[in-house]
Amino acid sequence: MPNTFGKIFSVTTWGESHGPAVGVVVDGCPPRLPLEVAEIQSELDRRRPGQSDIVTPRKEEDRVEILSGVFEGRTTGTPISMLVRNADQRPGAYDEMRDKFRPSHADYTYQAKFGVRDHRGGGRSSARETIGRVAGGAIAKKLLAGLAGGGVEIRAFLTQVHDIAAPLSALERFPTLAEVEATAVRCPHPETAARMIDRIKAVRAEGDSVGGVIECRIRGVPPGLGEPVFDRLEADLAKAMLSLPATKGFEIGSGFAGAQLRGSEHNDVFEPRDGRVRTVTNRSGGTQGGISNGEEIVFRVAFKPTATILRPQTTVDVHGAATELIGRGRHDPCVVPRAVPIVEAMAALVLADHWMRHHAQTKSFEI
Amino acid sequence: MPNTFGKIFSVTTWGESHGPAVGVVVDGCPPRLPLEVAEIQSELDRRRPGQSDIVTPRKEEDRVEILSGVFEGRTTGTPISMLVRNADQRPGAYDEMRDKFRPSHADYTYQAKFGVRDHRGGGRSSARETIGRVAGGAIAKKLLAGLAGGGVEIRAFLTQVHDIAAPLSALERFPTLAEVEATAVRCPHPETAARMIDRIKAVRAEGDSVGGVIECRIRGVPPGLGEPVFDRLEADLAKAMLSLPATKGFEIGSGFAGAQLRGSEHNDVFEPRDGRVRTVTNRSGGTQGGISNGEEIVFRVAFKPTATILRPQTTVDVHGAATELIGRGRHDPCVVPRAVPIVEAMAALVLADHWMRHHAQTKSFEI
Amino acid sequence: MPNTFGKIFSVTTWGESHGPAVGVVVDGCPPRLPLEVAEIQSELDRRRPGQSDIVTPRKEEDRVEILSGVFEGRTTGTPISMLVRNADQRPGAYDEMRDKFRPSHADYTYQAKFGVRDHRGGGRSSARETIGRVAGGAIAKKLLAGLAGGGVEIRAFLTQVHDIAAPLSALERFPTLAEVEATAVRCPHPETAARMIDRIKAVRAEGDSVGGVIECRIRGVPPGLGEPVFDRLEADLAKAMLSLPATKGFEIGSGFAGAQLRGSEHNDVFEPRDGRVRTVTNRSGGTQGGISNGEEIVFRVAFKPTATILRPQTTVDVHGAATELIGRGRHDPCVVPRAVPIVEAMAALVLADHWMRHHAQTKSFEI
Amino acid sequence: MPNTFGKIFSVTTWGESHGPAVGVVVDGCPPRLPLEVAEIQSELDRRRPGQSDIVTPRKEEDRVEILSGVFEGRTTGTPISMLVRNADQRPGAYDEMRDKFRPSHADYTYQAKFGVRDHRGGGRSSARETIGRVAGGAIAKKLLAGLAGGGVEIRAFLTQVHDIAAPLSALERFPTLAEVEATAVRCPHPETAARMIDRIKAVRAEGDSVGGVIECRIRGVPPGLGEPVFDRLEADLAKAMLSLPATKGFEIGSGFAGAQLRGSEHNDVFEPRDGRVRTVTNRSGGTQGGISNGEEIVFRVAFKPTATILRPQTTVDVHGAATELIGRGRHDPCVVPRAVPIVEAMAALVLADHWMRHHAQTKSFEI
Repeated sequence: MPNTFGKIFSVTTWGESHGPAVGVVVDGCPPRLPLEVAEIQSELDRRRPGQSDIVTPRKEEDRVEILSGVFEGRTTGTPISMLVRNADQRPGAYDEMRDKFRPSHADYTYQAKFGVRDHRGGGRSSARETIGRVAGGAIAKKLLAGLAGGGVEIRAFLTQVHDIAAPLSALERFPTLAEVEATAVRCPHPETAARMIDRIKAVRAEGDSVGGVIECRIRGVPPGLGEPVFDRLEADLAKAMLSLPATKGFEIGSGFAGAQLRGSEHNDVFEPRDGRVRTVTNRSGGTQGGISNGEEIVFRVAFKPTATILRPQTTVDVHGAATELIGRGRHDPCVVPRAVPIVEAMAALVLADHWMRHHAQTKSFEI
Repeated sequence: MPNTFGKIFSVTTWGESHGPAVGVVVDGCPPRLPLEVAEIQSELDRRRPGQSDIVTPRKEEDRVEILSGVFEGRTTGTPISMLVRNADQRPGAYDEMRDKFRPSHADYTYQAKFGVRDHRGGGRSSARETIGRVAGGAIAKKLLAGLAGGGVEIRAFLTQVHDIAAPLSALERFPTLAEVEATAVRCPHPETAARMIDRIKAVRAEGDSVGGVIECRIRGVPPGLGEPVFDRLEADLAKAMLSLPATKGFEIGSGFAGAQLRGSEHNDVFEPRDGRVRTVTNRSGGTQGGISNGEEIVFRVAFKPTATILRPQTTVDVHGAATELIGRGRHDPCVVPRAVPIVEAMAALVLADHWMRHHAQTKSFEI
Repeated sequence: MPNTFGKIFSVTTWGESHGPAVGVVVDGCPPRLPLEVAEIQSELDRRRPGQSDIVTPRKEEDRVEILSGVFEGRTTGTPISMLVRNADQRPGAYDEMRDKFRPSHADYTYQAKFGVRDHRGGGRSSARETIGRVAGGAIAKKLLAGLAGGGVEIRAFLTQVHDIAAPLSALERFPTLAEVEATAVRCPHPETAARMIDRIKAVRAEGDSVGGVIECRIRGVPPGLGEPVFDRLEADLAKAMLSLPATKGFEIGSGFAGAQLRGSEHNDVFEPRDGRVRTVTNRSGGTQGGISNGEEIVFRVAFKPTATILRPQTTVDVHGAATELIGRGRHDPCVVPRAVPIVEAMAALVLADHWMRHHAQTKSFEI
Repeated sequence: MPNTFGKIFSVTTWGESHGPAVGVVVDGCPPRLPLEVAEIQSELDRRRPGQSDIVTPRKEEDRVEILSGVFEGRTTGTPISMLVRNADQRPGAYDEMRDKFRPSHADYTYQAKFGVRDHRGGGRSSARETIGRVAGGAIAKKLLAGLAGGGVEIRAFLTQVHDIAAPLSALERFPTLAEVEATAVRCPHPETAARMIDRIKAVRAEGDSVGGVIECRIRGVPPGLGEPVFDRLEADLAKAMLSLPATKGFEIGSGFAGAQLRGSEHNDVFEPRDGRVRTVTNRSGGTQGGISNGEEIVFRVAFKPTATILRPQTTVDVHGAATELIGRGRHDPCVVPRAVPIVEAMAALVLADHWMRHHAQTKSFEI
């Protein structure tokens, strides 16, 4: 079931960009969780197009409807089905895609795999598919926020757009949601954010696009989440992130830079603090041996520049002949700011699932 | 089943570093595949300790026994169980670990999760667990090598140790197995390899350790492998790599550097070549939209420095009290060279599973 | 994911009896299968209430909408989401259920398990949940009908209602769909059908209910489907049938009666016939060792009498106190006739999934 | 993974009848469960051949070895690998099977499916495969026995051999283990047991075989186990039982006889008793809506007569030609008595898995 993610707390997404609707079925959510549709909607609003002048002007209200699994304001333990109708369909705008493969899009590979594809707006490979992820992730977030010990808090934000990166000193503490949402690029460092916005506007003016990097921090995770040897916490986070459109890399803690350190520099020595086992540093990024150690989880995700550019490109058509494609349609010159709530949603899905798996596998048997 | 990887071609590994044995059950391997135990053994020999003067002197013959699923030299379609006895056990050497948590090891997190652990040599979190992966991966490699169209070839190698990196010019072509195996560090660029070896010897003399980066290239993969939206080929590769001990990052194609490019620089335009749809460049790294596009698959994995160092470190004991730990025991000052066959094995497992899934889901129904 | 059935061709059902809608997501359906909404609707019409005077008068049009996965009349290999709005909701009719547990219904066990339940009409445990199964099964049927060699044909029908059973001589050949659909009870033996209808009317007049037995025959299944040792074909059929509401038993081939035979009487000896290996008798019911042998698959499913009866019954309320319940509401005095298309749907789901699994695991590797 | 059973507490069995060994990997067993190898061995001894004069004289000590996952007498939460070497191999005895398909065995279907098979003693389809199930089931039993509230107790026994059935009055109470083990046929009613033994000896003398029925009762199961809508408790029990060699039917509670009752006769009305919600009768067999209701779980399994008989039978060879087969080799004239511990093992695996799943999905989230 390639459209399902999670083993106990699972989401199954469905829907194409220009079909009637997109949606998700959440199975395995615990019962008795208070849940209002507004809590789902607010997360969807964060990823919605048309929120600022640096993103696609596609107009979608993206109103979510809960069709099952919630009764009198609480989850019932049965599947939660959610649906968002596709509104701003302009199928004619995509006629060129029927026959031509857009470079660095999924047009060719879907055709090669399935022998057929819904070409309108990328069909299933469109970022609209992530609506289901965000809706499911909103429930996971709600679950995590209510856990004992203060709850789990997830905060993603931009650290880089093109070659503009926030200074390391700006990333030393867990940013507030308000700091992240303060700017259209969702970088909590205002000066960097301003430069990022300028760069995005500049490349858009040239019909071009840029990539960027998102960092995600998670605090309040108890020690013990993660299921070695294959379902390590960082392995499932990596999978979750690389399952997102346009991602090219994942690193946790020290990441690629850690490969350049010595063990004596890299090791996080333990110390007793506040009655718990803590580490003095956090180069591990919150996991050791695939299991959370109670420190902040810190990872980064690399996004390539948007493949859609408003310039002519050579390509091949469905008959295998060389041709040219003129980029058109509404698009984000930089998808990374809108990917922030999506990264958070996927992180929430990983953690909710692992929290339930951990509970089942280890805490349940008390002699 | 956290110790199982793969949905159709699957491996289930088991075993602790100092228990009686380690092993694997491969389920879902197609029938009638010719298979000799020597083909498994040769891959195990590549990861075996004691092969050179820069790795752990732990003496393990690591002789594999096939217990089921192979009859008269061919697989039968039933589970293939393989076992390697642990030989060089020196449990006394690990007494200190019973009570103390080694920094940046999994001792503390296993204790926090399970409330119990086999402390000897890291138990289940030991790299000896990867023996099962390599044995299973050897069968996946055999399967892939025999596919139509010349077969799939997988080649991993070191590009970096500590701050010593192979020049980009040295990485322009697919290296031969002989080039990789020519040096103890498995870097196909001889001058860089020599410097890497010197560095490893130097840090070992100081009781320290270093990390590094492995690149893996795969050629001969047909277009169409990968199952969106969650089981994208790169998502499963990322999970596979981050499920390995000591890994901190994964990137495919342009990776984190790609975030610094513009769309007009990054896009891989298509061209007709040799009767097929090909890309002129390969910044995508062989997949688009989570599906292989027929180009070379290229990814990199970051490894942190070995956590075991022969220096005193402060830490905490199982009672939560501060204490000191003197590193001891045999260890690799740099695990990355021995990780090369393990990375290849995991890549082979991902591809074999996806090849079978693709076949089931898309090619099977012909009207 | 307890609401998902199937490993490659899978269905995930969702929805409660009196929520906004019920539905299903089909994942893993092969691409390029021609599919019209009318093909789904016709199967739903067979299970719809209100079709005859012996079933519940609940009025539901049960119009299905396809929301994704089908483009220009063909499946695309992406998830197929289908939805049916609940129309004839009379929530007030179920107020009594809020506090009282109906005997032999799932009210008490849902409350015990989840600590909350949508009490209206049984919520998730309602037979309306099977709408999703029938919609998914319609696609599986379409797939199976198109397979090479003439396709797979599935025919379920009633052999027994209460103590009225069709004579064995009436069951000697594969009945036509017309024969089954000729009567409201779906028993292809007209005399027995007439007696069944009379009996159902009689017990309904008394406010009572009756059970029955469905037999299902499947022809055209090629040898080789079924995945030992756990996913034997009959094991998955048994699970599929016992996952249906009101089922109490499953038997294949000789079934319980076979336990009373000797091996010399029971064995199906082989003979060459029409260039194939065939059996002279079919006490095995079409599978041996968990794998189809090419003969007709024959199984039977026992259904208990409907738990809802229009008589006062003693019971317990949610506070644990003894109380009395007066059965009300619309119900089927015998659910078995309407279960016929549901049994067929589940059989189709099992076979479609196994056909794809078989293809992946065994035919894919050709040396 | 067709050789894996269970979603959280899972077993993966491997091995052929005349290969080097058979075994199992148990993944998902909770940590800190006290476990001795003798507890596994005692269950294996119950299924071992050669225990009495009515079973196969094949001599197998069936000594089990625990290879991982247990440390200092307790489980560690990591996979538990267990192995039994095959000792009494007489491959020459099976030469005839290489070319001829034994009637009602799996020889033909394995050949049809895989295109290859280990013909010796049935290979993977041999009942020796169940050794892994019994070993895994022994751990599940241990887990269940230690649960709060007195623990879960599972008791299977024979109610029928050929046409000799225990009187219903003899089955009114939960039999003791001693009563079951008192006779070689494991029927707790001594007079019936004696007649069963005589019958088995008689058919063996004629070179023939007989089938029978096993009933299994389980007490101490708390309300709430079972995961609708597909993973209903009875659905997974049905699958577990039909996954056993030679089984032809499964029924729970009233079973097929229940189809002949009216709702007013069949319903289990609730009453408050001992501070709990209980049912007055138990025609449901311990589950309602797929979830345990706290009453005794009662189900029955039908076994066909052993396919191996010592008489000439016509058949077909691997080339498709008609031939004759003379039954030979050691076999059980009635497999049902030895199936008793296997049925218990499978029931234990279902319950342990569902107990853990229930815990994860519903009890874990406390607001």
